[in-house]
Amino acid sequence: MHELVKEFNDYRGKMNEKIFAQNNKVINRLFNLDTNTYADGALSVKTKEMLGLVASMVLRCDDCIKYHLGTCKGLGVTTEEMFEIFSVANIVGGTIVIPHLRRAVEYWEAL
Amino acid sequence: MHELVKEFNDYRGKMNEKIFAQNNKVINRLFNLDTNTYADGALSVKTKEMLGLVASMVLRCDDCIKYHLGTCKGLGVTTEEMFEIFSVANIVGGTIVIPHLRRAVEYWEAL
Amino acid sequence: MHELVKEFNDYRGKMNEKIFAQNNKVINRLFNLDTNTYADGALSVKTKEMLGLVASMVLRCDDCIKYHLGTCKGLGVTTEEMFEIFSVANIVGGTIVIPHLRRAVEYWEAL
Amino acid sequence: MHELVKEFNDYRGKMNEKIFAQNNKVINRLFNLDTNTYADGALSVKTKEMLGLVASMVLRCDDCIKYHLGTCKGLGVTTEEMFEIFSVANIVGGTIVIPHLRRAVEYWEAL
Amino acid sequence: MHELVKEFNDYRGKMNEKIFAQNNKVINRLFNLDTNTYADGALSVKTKEMLGLVASMVLRCDDCIKYHLGTCKGLGVTTEEMFEIFSVANIVGGTIVIPHLRRAVEYWEAL
Amino acid sequence: MHELVKEFNDYRGKMNEKIFAQNNKVINRLFNLDTNTYADGALSVKTKEMLGLVASMVLRCDDCIKYHLGTCKGLGVTTEEMFEIFSVANIVGGTIVIPHLRRAVEYWEAL
Repeated sequence: MHELVKEFNDYRGKMNEKIFAQNNKVINRLFNLDTNTYADGALSVKTKEMLGLVASMVLRCDDCIKYHLGTCKGLGVTTEEMFEIFSVANIVGGTIVIPHLRRAVEYWEAL
Repeated sequence: MHELVKEFNDYRGKMNEKIFAQNNKVINRLFNLDTNTYADGALSVKTKEMLGLVASMVLRCDDCIKYHLGTCKGLGVTTEEMFEIFSVANIVGGTIVIPHLRRAVEYWEAL
Repeated sequence: MHELVKEFNDYRGKMNEKIFAQNNKVINRLFNLDTNTYADGALSVKTKEMLGLVASMVLRCDDCIKYHLGTCKGLGVTTEEMFEIFSVANIVGGTIVIPHLRRAVEYWEAL
Repeated sequence: MHELVKEFNDYRGKMNEKIFAQNNKVINRLFNLDTNTYADGALSVKTKEMLGLVASMVLRCDDCIKYHLGTCKGLGVTTEEMFEIFSVANIVGGTIVIPHLRRAVEYWEAL
Repeated sequence: MHELVKEFNDYRGKMNEKIFAQNNKVINRLFNLDTNTYADGALSVKTKEMLGLVASMVLRCDDCIKYHLGTCKGLGVTTEEMFEIFSVANIVGGTIVIPHLRRAVEYWEAL
Repeated sequence: MHELVKEFNDYRGKMNEKIFAQNNKVINRLFNLDTNTYADGALSVKTKEMLGLVASMVLRCDDCIKYHLGTCKGLGVTTEEMFEIFSVANIVGGTIVIPHLRRAVEYWEAL
């Protein structure tokens, strides 16, 4: 596993554990609900992960982008498809999204 | 056509014409590029319109939401699918998105 | 009840019912979780509602602001306290928040 | 004076008075500081008002846009210049800004 | 003092000095006004700092979050209270806030 | 060239090349359009770059800020003018912009 990916996964895993351990009911249920959101339903898991990715991109959250890039990769999204998701995000969100696009492309390559 | 939809389409059409008429090259090309973004490609038009919708929703732009609701309706997105798009937007974007969800549901019904 | 308040409550109530009726599990659980978030705990309901208000204000969501203004009023927040919440929101969020402050003051008066 | 402009100015004036009357020191000083920000300095008033406009536009605040459109009009900004400001805002902020562009063009015409 | 905290404080102090030294009246008065915002008034300093924290969190500014975490720690906010502030921020702002929650928890531990 | 500047330029250049190489028509045309946006027209290049900077600052994108700081420097914007741009951004966008101001001042010094 590429260092960029490992570093992201490790920090995310370590901090999530610390958060769960606090037993704040609202936060723990939100994490749980987050997982359910991307489950197979009327829309496929792949479509939902792409929706999550484009939402993360226009809101310009690098860590959220990385997470959904990882799941999209695992679901077989191709690079050509990925760049079409990127194009929607950059047109809707504007050139302010471009620095996040750069980091997304770097992470996508690392995956 | 429902009044809500007609009013939205009429204002949008009228103002777009005024904007084009100014011949600002950057703006006119951006409008053109916007159209191309949602064209059939590696991803289907339907998927891209759903991506455009979720992006509009987390960025909380009622008019952009209405536009994509209209195109999604035309492409046969079902109400059940639509609510799964809404669920992604509301989980990623938080309860701050809920007032936009209310107006989206009203407009979806009007369509 | 002032017309501004009644209109807000009526629309909110009517649309929430339509949303619940769709039985989208993620959305319905998010609404439920939203209610739990402001329950009495280590922090009082009053403090949590003030937190919800300031968050709504810097994110510039008029409907969310109205909702929390209503609950704050019911919990006995004074006008002087309210303006101190407003001052935090306007300093953190900048003058871009001022138009929302104007509408908040109008709604606060209506309550 | 066009009705759109009068309505905006009247509401703004009326609510600003109510806000000042509360004597919240932080808010009143912020309003005062806001005025000073656009005073002539190393940059001209016209340049600063254009900066205020583009900032309001990418942050998508219709009332702030209207305010700066009014001052820009008074300072002799031409329609061609205005559309170049709009083009920067729409490229940086993305198509999510377009609905605000439509309303800005309508208000600019009204001025 | 933990390295994370020291690094944050040092950079903040050093850059603030450089900013003040430029003698831009608007910026220096804004910094001054910022300090006054959190002074004891109708609301306690502790409440105001919690308001500042939740506002910083939904606006997703890590440095602002760190600053208010530091002041909240100094004012005796408990970990249980802190997680209730976090829960409001994450429900209002959505899962896009979670990466900031992770870094906030890390910094809170460091304090 | 200062290390901060070199690092920014190198990463930007390297990733832009990778992005262009994918031949996504929408993204490549957006990059091209972005360049045209800041061309001399009814407004000077200098004014447009200042507009781009203030937009980047209120949207709180450090990389976009760095890019426009670089072009502004090349166009002869003085430090006093720069701080007036900063003052507009910080008043409109609020104290949430201050951490970006700190990094902007550091980068401006490096240029």
